[in-house]
Amino acid sequence: MLTIRPFVESDWNAVWQIVEPVFRAADTYPYPPTITEDEAFDVWITAPKMTFVAEDGGNAAILGTYYIKPNQVSQGSHVCNCGYIVADAARGRGVASQMCEHSQQEAVRQGFRAMQYNLVVATNKGAVRLWQKMGFQIAGTLAGAFKHPALGYVDAHVMYKTLET
Amino acid sequence: MLTIRPFVESDWNAVWQIVEPVFRAADTYPYPPTITEDEAFDVWITAPKMTFVAEDGGNAAILGTYYIKPNQVSQGSHVCNCGYIVADAARGRGVASQMCEHSQQEAVRQGFRAMQYNLVVATNKGAVRLWQKMGFQIAGTLAGAFKHPALGYVDAHVMYKTLET
Repeated sequence: MLTIRPFVESDWNAVWQIVEPVFRAADTYPYPPTITEDEAFDVWITAPKMTFVAEDGGNAAILGTYYIKPNQVSQGSHVCNCGYIVADAARGRGVASQMCEHSQQEAVRQGFRAMQYNLVVATNKGAVRLWQKMGFQIAGTLAGAFKHPALGYVDAHVMYKTLET
Repeated sequence: MLTIRPFVESDWNAVWQIVEPVFRAADTYPYPPTITEDEAFDVWITAPKMTFVAEDGGNAAILGTYYIKPNQVSQGSHVCNCGYIVADAARGRGVASQMCEHSQQEAVRQGFRAMQYNLVVATNKGAVRLWQKMGFQIAGTLAGAFKHPALGYVDAHVMYKTLET
């Protein structure tokens, strides 16, 4: 069982352990692989409207985290953007799909009408498949829009879902 | 004849005259119609990597302005984003297309490999047509992603062009 709840400051060490290797790999998120812990805090905690953690219902270990924020200002602020990261050791347990489901409910609760992922790296096929399973469509594909550290310039998708409000 | 050159501080009054009515209308850019002059300066001048003005070759009147900036950080920073605004009195004189052409050359000069417009309001048909004429494709359409002050939620396009480098 997974408990998904708002991030509190004392979660940061656990969250940083989860997001650091993903940011360092720089093959799914656009942040620089040299990002500092302070910069990561700004990106994942300060800039978003809210951040959540997914906690193991048994031992309270943090297994994943996501943020939610408006994707644009004012006239575009009814569309939200989210980012999700699952602890490497917790992969394959449905944490990402449960966080995605939670984020959609949270988005509706906050008054958002749609959710947009701006840069889903096409080589990250597991993510693309999962978001499609969660009801997102590939709105469009941006040729060579992501610089993959091993593969060079690869395509990225804009994925979008209108929420049931 | 049009001269397109980098913005200097003394251009701001003229640039503000041009961008204010467009921001106030809030039917093409997502900024709040209540945006202040200081906020507009931040958005149009401070946040972008560079801002340009298009000047009438005869009387040096400023007829338009555009900005250029990376659309994403680090692994997505080789794709730029631009925004263009033409003075109401100068419409129909090719100012937007000349600024778009200039911005593509400037983008290549700065090392960008592609240009992306994130939120081209579908009801702004003149702009959609112009960007298509300038070689941009509609990468995807975001259902109801823009709140038009008169028409309500309308679609917006992500438009994209790979630059010849």
